[in-house]
Amino acid sequence: MGNGELYFTKMHGLGNDFVVLDGISQSVNLSAAQIRQIADRHRGVGCDQLLLVEAYEGDDAEFRYRIFNADGSEVEQCGNGARCFARFVYDQGLTQNTTIPVMTASGRIVLQIQPDGQVKVNMGVPELTPAQIPFVSEQRQTLYTLDVKGAAVSLAAVSMGNPHAVLQVVALESAPVATLGALLEVHPAFPKRVNVGFMQVVGRDAIRLRVFERGCGETLACGTGACAAVVAGRLQGLLDDQVTVSLPGGDLQIQWQGEGQPVWMIGPAATVFRGTLIV
Amino acid sequence: MGNGELYFTKMHGLGNDFVVLDGISQSVNLSAAQIRQIADRHRGVGCDQLLLVEAYEGDDAEFRYRIFNADGSEVEQCGNGARCFARFVYDQGLTQNTTIPVMTASGRIVLQIQPDGQVKVNMGVPELTPAQIPFVSEQRQTLYTLDVKGAAVSLAAVSMGNPHAVLQVVALESAPVATLGALLEVHPAFPKRVNVGFMQVVGRDAIRLRVFERGCGETLACGTGACAAVVAGRLQGLLDDQVTVSLPGGDLQIQWQGEGQPVWMIGPAATVFRGTLIV
Repeated sequence: MGNGELYFTKMHGLGNDFVVLDGISQSVNLSAAQIRQIADRHRGVGCDQLLLVEAYEGDDAEFRYRIFNADGSEVEQCGNGARCFARFVYDQGLTQNTTIPVMTASGRIVLQIQPDGQVKVNMGVPELTPAQIPFVSEQRQTLYTLDVKGAAVSLAAVSMGNPHAVLQVVALESAPVATLGALLEVHPAFPKRVNVGFMQVVGRDAIRLRVFERGCGETLACGTGACAAVVAGRLQGLLDDQVTVSLPGGDLQIQWQGEGQPVWMIGPAATVFRGTLIV
Repeated sequence: MGNGELYFTKMHGLGNDFVVLDGISQSVNLSAAQIRQIADRHRGVGCDQLLLVEAYEGDDAEFRYRIFNADGSEVEQCGNGARCFARFVYDQGLTQNTTIPVMTASGRIVLQIQPDGQVKVNMGVPELTPAQIPFVSEQRQTLYTLDVKGAAVSLAAVSMGNPHAVLQVVALESAPVATLGALLEVHPAFPKRVNVGFMQVVGRDAIRLRVFERGCGETLACGTGACAAVVAGRLQGLLDDQVTVSLPGGDLQIQWQGEGQPVWMIGPAATVFRGTLIV
């Protein structure tokens, strides 16, 4: 990009915040350094992730949806970002459809704008085969036991396009999210590192969840983490097929019929402001 | 304010960042709750302080310059904000003058836009009388000794419109900024609390400085703290009248002829983006 103006919208889903760029109406070609600059909360716009809308050449999706972390690296998937993406392309008039198929780096997802303004996202079929997560294990199990610095940790392993470990805890407030999260993130059993969810089961239709995200630390609301936790809880026989997941940033509704079916997530997406950046 | 749009500009001075609002071209009447919402870095615009440009009825200033912390409280003075304020009113065409007198809650200051785009600010005459700082002491001294949890701490006390304690340290990296800063902030000798500067003298024309700000903790670059440190260093005979102050966020030039004279600060002000908020 030369000297010019870049139009953006600042959005958030449960406090997980995004700079959203329309790469169709304007040309967007940012370096990792430029993304880091935009994500800087004091000298830039500030965000957890940058979302980029691109045209998609093909019949199976309307848009390409790309996601960049604040460090400039491109990532596969972000559930809160997907809801913001849907509201963005609809509110900006880039589509008139309320059911919007989009292509991400980890595959196709379908976004649905609900009558109340919330967004329902088909998050895809969870991947439970260890090699596909990726997770190092000879065979698939509902619960695995890992050695973490000499302690035996029991966890489920699920991919929602990105790898998740899910641990059940009795009291969420005292869960060792920062310490155990950081140890598991880099555990050799997860060759692409892992997001770590700490789940407290409140009832068959309600859990409370805190998530340590790969490369970020604990976040306010991890959408794919909520899906992974409900999948793990369902497979352990703890949950029904519709579950309210209470995260520090707010609530998500997660639906999963079971093995081989996609996970559905319903939650809010808020537009905060529109801006013009000098680049 | 009813439902409508609020135009703002995001700026920073050495990483100390501001939402700047033109309260002349548009009507701005924000509650403390609305300011906290705007300052929220995930669900709002995000800033250290909000700066408000208002019309001033009088001959001794062109504008009223009001400053609000992220918690919604109004404060007297902010040196980095003053530089951004000057560039804002000039760049927005609210004035054609490059020397701009403005009225703050702590009195009149004069801002000068330099040919290189940096801004020179007359920060006023430092106040050294204990009762005016305010600081509890029978008489004025160059250095005071305070009892902090049983330890004797030597410090200078200066007001630059806001109260400052300045401590000299040998090595800035290992200075107890967070711990001693927090203890001194609420020390009973400072009835309106205090900003605490830790100064390492590098030469007669150069110091390094870290500042613990009242209500904020350590910040990247405190403009009034830089002034207070140079005043304290001059009065102790350690510094000449032009000093480069290296803060974690970057450098400021501070000039002070001595007792009874105003302190001048020269430094940068950067515009990051312009935005429109739905309120």
